Amino acid sequence: MPMVKTIPVNVPGRAYEVTVGVNLLDGVGEKLASLAGGDAGGRAVVITDSNVAPLYAEAVRAALAAAGCRADAIDFPAGEQSKSLTVYGQVMDRLLSLSPAVDRRCLIVALGGGVVGDLAGFVAATALRGLSYVNLPTTLLADVDASVGGKTGLDAPAGKNLIGAFHQPRAVIIDAALLKTLPPGELGNGLAECVKHAVIRDGRMLDFIEDSASAILAADAEVLAELIGRNVAIKAAVVAADERESGERAHLNFGHTIGHAVEAAAGYGTVSHGQAVSLGMVAACHVAAARKLIEPSLARRVSEVLSALSLPVRFADLPDAPSEARDPGNLRRIMSHDKKARAGVVRFVLPTGLGNVAVFDDVTDDLIDRAIQSLGA
Amino acid sequence: MPMVKTIPVNVPGRAYEVTVGVNLLDGVGEKLASLAGGDAGGRAVVITDSNVAPLYAEAVRAALAAAGCRADAIDFPAGEQSKSLTVYGQVMDRLLSLSPAVDRRCLIVALGGGVVGDLAGFVAATALRGLSYVNLPTTLLADVDASVGGKTGLDAPAGKNLIGAFHQPRAVIIDAALLKTLPPGELGNGLAECVKHAVIRDGRMLDFIEDSASAILAADAEVLAELIGRNVAIKAAVVAADERESGERAHLNFGHTIGHAVEAAAGYGTVSHGQAVSLGMVAACHVAAARKLIEPSLARRVSEVLSALSLPVRFADLPDAPSEARDPGNLRRIMSHDKKARAGVVRFVLPTGLGNVAVFDDVTDDLIDRAIQSLGA
Repeated sequence: MPMVKTIPVNVPGRAYEVTVGVNLLDGVGEKLASLAGGDAGGRAVVITDSNVAPLYAEAVRAALAAAGCRADAIDFPAGEQSKSLTVYGQVMDRLLSLSPAVDRRCLIVALGGGVVGDLAGFVAATALRGLSYVNLPTTLLADVDASVGGKTGLDAPAGKNLIGAFHQPRAVIIDAALLKTLPPGELGNGLAECVKHAVIRDGRMLDFIEDSASAILAADAEVLAELIGRNVAIKAAVVAADERESGERAHLNFGHTIGHAVEAAAGYGTVSHGQAVSLGMVAACHVAAARKLIEPSLARRVSEVLSALSLPVRFADLPDAPSEARDPGNLRRIMSHDKKARAGVVRFVLPTGLGNVAVFDDVTDDLIDRAIQSLGA
Repeated sequence: MPMVKTIPVNVPGRAYEVTVGVNLLDGVGEKLASLAGGDAGGRAVVITDSNVAPLYAEAVRAALAAAGCRADAIDFPAGEQSKSLTVYGQVMDRLLSLSPAVDRRCLIVALGGGVVGDLAGFVAATALRGLSYVNLPTTLLADVDASVGGKTGLDAPAGKNLIGAFHQPRAVIIDAALLKTLPPGELGNGLAECVKHAVIRDGRMLDFIEDSASAILAADAEVLAELIGRNVAIKAAVVAADERESGERAHLNFGHTIGHAVEAAAGYGTVSHGQAVSLGMVAACHVAAARKLIEPSLARRVSEVLSALSLPVRFADLPDAPSEARDPGNLRRIMSHDKKARAGVVRFVLPTGLGNVAVFDDVTDDLIDRAIQSLGA
């Protein structure tokens, strides 16, 4: 029997647990059914995407049915472009047209990666003015990042994630065995966030990642479960301290200032989020070292662990990225228009030592340029 | 200086005040600006409809500007059909495309009747994962009903109000002088709810309504302000006791069981909500009297006050309503499919005395039929 780890997320008034383990999907029915209200064994609707549906939707639906819970499944086309009002409306219409009609006791089960969690979570937040939901993430990024925090939402023509709600799940169940079906490269999106968590909060986890890099890349389920558990605990602590993102939660933006700009300049989809954040962390460490907040050896160490995880640390590692994504002036222009920039001031989360960060509003344009140039050309 | 009444709404963690008076619009700028965060005097966006925009939008925008608050206005076509995902998406796009871009400190001002409150409130609930908003209702129904309770939402193809969120306003400001521009008949929608509040909670308000019926129908602003203040206090007490509608809030459905069925059978728009609820209250009083919960004299009194307010108390008062809206079998069929019916059981809120009601699941089909037949043919 493999180890199962339970991590409490202490959001005031809406506390819930994240359960992490291997092969948890088999026993998921009773747990979900206990959260699904209604007559007899309750009612649940699994919302998933076209990638995940053929792999796991039937297993979850069958587990629910075996626990006496009436369960339907709704899937939508996989991909970020489904985080639209159009697809939201289609999923909502299907949910509201189920027969017999769902009522407020219906449980939504979000089964998939970050897009599924965001869209299904927003459907849960807004169907019948709010249904309970459970996250069953199926990517490492969703496991360690999106599954905790209660952020749900859609993209708008004016920008990503501009429509949405804070809606905390009733539970999160993470089965590390599901990661074996991830497409190549997708693991890296989650690994970049793991390194981020280590740098901002937990130096000992950086040791663990360094020691386990090859097992991680081989998608060893036990090692991934350990990695996920540690990262969820960090994310949960940050979120519990700052549910609505006014203070401490900003620390999670380490690597994201330049990272978001690279991702946007490259055109979303050309450079993955994890690749962009990896470069962003290397650049932020360059800024921190130049400002003598950290030793150059720590900056090198962060770069090396990212490399060991097959993440890019120089522009040369991303030969297909367009030149606009490497141009300091262009990247700075994008940064000053980011929704997190206030009155054009670019904010950086910089390490002040391994496991500690602070927010800085006063990084000079010249130093930003040099940090970007340090990534090569 | 006319009297201004302030009613606290004690929703846990999100308490706010409803201010009721006459000619409040003139002084609204400072108050709104104090709630609009951001640089200098803050930022606000007024959301309204095509009926209200030409009457009051510029006054509110100018009051905000005079208080140093940057204010834009967005309007959409008036009417229930605008409570759609399509119009929501259009309003959201306009909000998110404003320049400079709005941030989380932006205040939404919902200026209009129930449709505006529902749509603008849902936009506020879901733009940037939640903006603050203030209700400035402009109909009596919105004043006494929708402005308090935090219900926001849209209609879906599968039914009304199936998409939405609970999102409490930061403040509600009710100017009774605005009611002078209401189209004929619209006042009745609010008056039916006022009689409902009197029957379920406040017998002395029934005296006040009887004594003031002609002043009310003449839209006397001072009398309406008094009426609104008393009704808001009742609604606020019910909502504060039961924010998410699990218990006591069900009492607000007095008159709505048969009323909703009549409204739906007639086709929404043929019979107004207030007219339908008026008939529903007369029928519910018939049921209560037949079950000896109340004296027949109270049933007669409720009917007489509704008549004095120009509300229908017999099908003959609605000569244009189709015959389906008078057929007991048809109405019962609709009732058993209502989203508030569980497993087909029709629930009635019945008076047990003036100012008191209780919920009943055991009203027989025969008695329902007789109550409907008591409305004539």
